[in-house]
Amino acid sequence: MAAPVSKKDVSKVSAAALQTFCSECFQKVGVSPEHARITSENLIFANLRGVDSHGVIRMKIYTDRLAAGGIDARARPEVVSETESGGLIDGRNGLGQVAGTRGVGLAIKKASYGGVGCVGVRNSNHFGAAAYYSMMALEEGMIGFAATNAGPSMAPTGGREARLGNNPFAVAVPAQRHIPVVLDMATGAVAWGKIFLAQQEEKKIPLTWALDKEGMPTDDPDRAADGGLIQPAGGYKGYGLSLLMDILTGVLCGSAFSVHVKSVYQDLSNPAGCAHIFAAVRVDTFMPRDQFGRRVDELVDLMQSCPRAPSVERIYVPGEIEDDTQRLRLASGIPLNPVLRDELAALGKKLGVKPPF
Amino acid sequence: MAAPVSKKDVSKVSAAALQTFCSECFQKVGVSPEHARITSENLIFANLRGVDSHGVIRMKIYTDRLAAGGIDARARPEVVSETESGGLIDGRNGLGQVAGTRGVGLAIKKASYGGVGCVGVRNSNHFGAAAYYSMMALEEGMIGFAATNAGPSMAPTGGREARLGNNPFAVAVPAQRHIPVVLDMATGAVAWGKIFLAQQEEKKIPLTWALDKEGMPTDDPDRAADGGLIQPAGGYKGYGLSLLMDILTGVLCGSAFSVHVKSVYQDLSNPAGCAHIFAAVRVDTFMPRDQFGRRVDELVDLMQSCPRAPSVERIYVPGEIEDDTQRLRLASGIPLNPVLRDELAALGKKLGVKPPF
Repeated sequence: MAAPVSKKDVSKVSAAALQTFCSECFQKVGVSPEHARITSENLIFANLRGVDSHGVIRMKIYTDRLAAGGIDARARPEVVSETESGGLIDGRNGLGQVAGTRGVGLAIKKASYGGVGCVGVRNSNHFGAAAYYSMMALEEGMIGFAATNAGPSMAPTGGREARLGNNPFAVAVPAQRHIPVVLDMATGAVAWGKIFLAQQEEKKIPLTWALDKEGMPTDDPDRAADGGLIQPAGGYKGYGLSLLMDILTGVLCGSAFSVHVKSVYQDLSNPAGCAHIFAAVRVDTFMPRDQFGRRVDELVDLMQSCPRAPSVERIYVPGEIEDDTQRLRLASGIPLNPVLRDELAALGKKLGVKPPF
Repeated sequence: MAAPVSKKDVSKVSAAALQTFCSECFQKVGVSPEHARITSENLIFANLRGVDSHGVIRMKIYTDRLAAGGIDARARPEVVSETESGGLIDGRNGLGQVAGTRGVGLAIKKASYGGVGCVGVRNSNHFGAAAYYSMMALEEGMIGFAATNAGPSMAPTGGREARLGNNPFAVAVPAQRHIPVVLDMATGAVAWGKIFLAQQEEKKIPLTWALDKEGMPTDDPDRAADGGLIQPAGGYKGYGLSLLMDILTGVLCGSAFSVHVKSVYQDLSNPAGCAHIFAAVRVDTFMPRDQFGRRVDELVDLMQSCPRAPSVERIYVPGEIEDDTQRLRLASGIPLNPVLRDELAALGKKLGVKPPF
């Protein structure tokens, strides 16, 4: 069990410097400068927004997989079919960020013609934070949607074996005066990190978070960590959502699904088989962009001004906490704990790239 | 508090007879035969699938609203804008089922040309079970999506006042050997009925179900029922989903949203302002229809065959329980408890329609 990290042990690094470091590391394992830039930008985006689980903590496994051939560093995504408003891209087992960026780009292009675009990606890999892709649609004044499947980590309701990923999805909606509404959620009740924290603090966990290895809900974080599983969010509703995301990605796009998807940490030299789906909707086919933005603003105002429960200081709209963190970290840098800093330093040393700290 | 209903008090009525009764009642309050048929079919669909909260229990309030002018019996939905793959329909404050059926029909038509269709409906009313609309796409071998907003009943996370509806959505996915996967979920943690049941049985409720009137989570069903609110499903995730559904319906379609939407039981002579959104995706733009169906079958098999937790007899896929109920009720009739039977009898008497019992 790791000792708690004190504040003074955490060093901060500028986003730009960290992104350059990541990009250079990717290039050392055979990724083109353009693809290295795309992938690094996605990782740094996550760190800036406080989603550190999807940031540079993934550098080691990404470069290990690239080196072992489990991700093809030189792959170029290929459009395999197209309709007026839809499309299917084969990621050719390259970086998920490269195929993902291409996918959402095509969905936006389709939507700019016909009002709606929907593009799937097969034979891809871990694509980082889903919000990144949904937010690309914002620049065109569109609503963006992104989802992916992932290696199995949850059971269907009533089960006790992992058959579905903690499949996340994200939706981004442009506002006018307010920042965009960005909902980025996994379909599991909670991240493992919170259960590990409860173990360290010797606290019970809610019965809705995890199953023990027999498949029974448990409030004991030790029993959860001993071969148990995360429960779907909201019980069978999260199960249904996770199943749906697997259908829209792996099943529909002709890629791996359910137990056939490999975790990013598993079998480093073989393809993971991930799939993604992206959609974009042009707001101005429904009403003028400004009018829509003002209506989103009013909805946000109605949430933020809601009378609060005792001891609640502020009501947030999805994406607000991440936006606050991004402002802070753009100004003062991305915090790296000593373990992660050492890992990145070792990676830089191995690949011959000077780390920015 | 109502006494429990014993089995022998429940009478069963054939779906066809009950649908004819509903259709005749609607025509007595000025609805055209065609619109009466559409609306009745949607209500009976819900009863057949065991979703009795959205079935004939709504007959009284629908006919009351139609009589009071809160729903315009003679309204015809109008297409107000169209693109290659999108569209917007004004329901003109007619029956939600009429505008909804028109909306999903247009989405399917758009998808049959371009691969994807997305159609919004504004100025509508309570549209019944969302699954009904999503399942219309199945007949064309498409994936269907339907969502609606509703009168406010939930607070944003941290709030203590209703600012969002328990906004539901449904997705239907065609299979081959198996029945379709149909996920139809509200964004609230639970239906009020379960809290009322806990009151009757003097049992505690999980802390994730409801808030008391101060906005604090409560395990006391009496405190929940005393001016409290349902919590969103999965905490802030359900809040995000409900907000998203309000954006895609009320905000995007130019209809009422948040506190501006009226409940079906409120203000009988004025419009509710509901909005809906429908989407359809042509599966065969991704892969041949049969191949997709077989892949869905395999995913369903993987769920159903998952090793089970103790005392779990069967693992269900979304839509299976409803399909089982439908087979049963098509054969043996729709059960009506005495209270509902009396209500329908009184309605029939008032409107001059003979009830089928």
